[in-house]
Amino acid sequence: MIGIGAGDPDHLTLQGAKAIGAADAFLLVGKGEAKDDLTGLRRDLISAHGREPYRVVEARDPERDRTASAYTAAVEDWRSRRAEIYESFVRDELAEGETGALLVWGDPGVYDSTLAALDEIDAEFDYEVIPGISSISALTARHRVGLTRVGRPVHVTTGRRLATEGTTADDVLVMLDAACAFAEVGDGFHIYWGAYLGTPDEILIEGPVAEVADQIRATRAEARARKGWIMDTYLLRRSLS
Amino acid sequence: MIGIGAGDPDHLTLQGAKAIGAADAFLLVGKGEAKDDLTGLRRDLISAHGREPYRVVEARDPERDRTASAYTAAVEDWRSRRAEIYESFVRDELAEGETGALLVWGDPGVYDSTLAALDEIDAEFDYEVIPGISSISALTARHRVGLTRVGRPVHVTTGRRLATEGTTADDVLVMLDAACAFAEVGDGFHIYWGAYLGTPDEILIEGPVAEVADQIRATRAEARARKGWIMDTYLLRRSLS
Ligand SMILES: C[S@@+](CC[C@H](N)C(=O)[O-])C[C@H]1O[C@@H](n2cnc3c(N)ncnc32)[C@H](O)[C@@H]1O
Ligand SMILES: C[S@@+](CC[C@H](N)C(=O)[O-])C[C@H]1O[C@@H](n2cnc3c(N)ncnc32)[C@H](O)[C@@H]1O
Repeated sequence: MIGIGAGDPDHLTLQGAKAIGAADAFLLVGKGEAKDDLTGLRRDLISAHGREPYRVVEARDPERDRTASAYTAAVEDWRSRRAEIYESFVRDELAEGETGALLVWGDPGVYDSTLAALDEIDAEFDYEVIPGISSISALTARHRVGLTRVGRPVHVTTGRRLATEGTTADDVLVMLDAACAFAEVGDGFHIYWGAYLGTPDEILIEGPVAEVADQIRATRAEARARKGWIMDTYLLRRSLS
Repeated sequence: MIGIGAGDPDHLTLQGAKAIGAADAFLLVGKGEAKDDLTGLRRDLISAHGREPYRVVEARDPERDRTASAYTAAVEDWRSRRAEIYESFVRDELAEGETGALLVWGDPGVYDSTLAALDEIDAEFDYEVIPGISSISALTARHRVGLTRVGRPVHVTTGRRLATEGTTADDVLVMLDAACAFAEVGDGFHIYWGAYLGTPDEILIEGPVAEVADQIRATRAEARARKGWIMDTYLLRRSLS
């Protein structure tokens, strides 16, 4: 399980490149939609770092019920169906002693279900997880800002949580926000926002939330319409007086 | 400013390797103590990826007042003295148009003062931040566990904060803990602990806190005595029923 970084092919680590070079087969799970840009990066990394002979096995991602109000249940259901795909990859596509690779977006530990899905697999195999540059690290690096301030905590959360719980700390990193929950955080917060980080489409906006919220919302809507999908994340930081 | 990862030379990204290859000069700030192991990794990366001709400029880290009760003030004072070192590197060691590199442990955004110190520099220069594998990503990868659970937050904090505030969430990632604050978190938490992650000395221990706290404490004390320094981090996770 190889973390490939958050969009820039050069986010790949040397460890990740070596692991790609050591794999006999790769499983590519396509979303069958505009998001195939994301599969594109995986293909490029395999061509660049794979060592012949290797095989590429393709599978179709199960549909996820995005209308479900029970977000966690929908994710868990989707994960079980994904586990079946991984299981048949391990069981039917890999011979004894062979190594298969899954290329995971960003860092495999950050809001990704692949690890949990692997746990559900009913087949005998061993695996290793190779860390990757998360979109969190990509965001803060591009804004040249720390994720954490001296001796202070940072809370990492989702857009849904931010919308219901508000800011739970002076420093909050938000992912998976489809609804621009930042617009509601109130005065005193600065936002460091980034979309398509690490890619040629990267967009960065920062400033006091009150001043830039509308600009982010408009930019986001426009970019999403143009490309058909968007991935964005942001850091909210309250000024300390 | 290049994030070099948390201990394994292969944590370096392709972007980081290219940036090392493009630098005219490197600033190495030594601690003049056992922690020179940490400078060792930087030297190795420079030899492996630097492109001749390049220069290595060495400086001695300012002492930090570790007895100060005002942790933040002590860090800020130390940071200002470090800023002077960076400033003289930029001003005195780099000619017009040259590129200097700072190799930063882990990810530059995670509990690191270099970014803030650069902000204090009084010299005209431009800089870029290259993200690196943080010890957070290294920890979760080695334990093959997610940093986040589906739709749930994770709080990243310091040992001092954990000691005074307790667990502020069901998932807490703790860094900079010199006092084994995990021992006080109470029942219901699982701990994923790692020391010297990514290095040949790596130690991993996991289990219910109540069962493994003593083992971690003893292992930590022994390793610290033997090597003269330790770096460890851990994830606390409450079981959801
Ligand atoms: C399912 S999570 C996967 C996160 C991934 N494992 C990581 O380490 O970044 C997807 C979310 O990550 C964030 N994200 C991932 N890649 C991004 C990018 N290149 N730019 C901005 N946000 C990104 C967005 O918040 C998106 O909703
Ligand atoms: C000053 S902070 C720097 C963190 C670094 N920027 C990063 O991204 O990991 C130092 C703390 O990071 C953690 N740490 C860094 N490297 C580590 C390693 N190899 N193993 C375990 N913990 C590590 C420890 O908690 C240590 O006290």
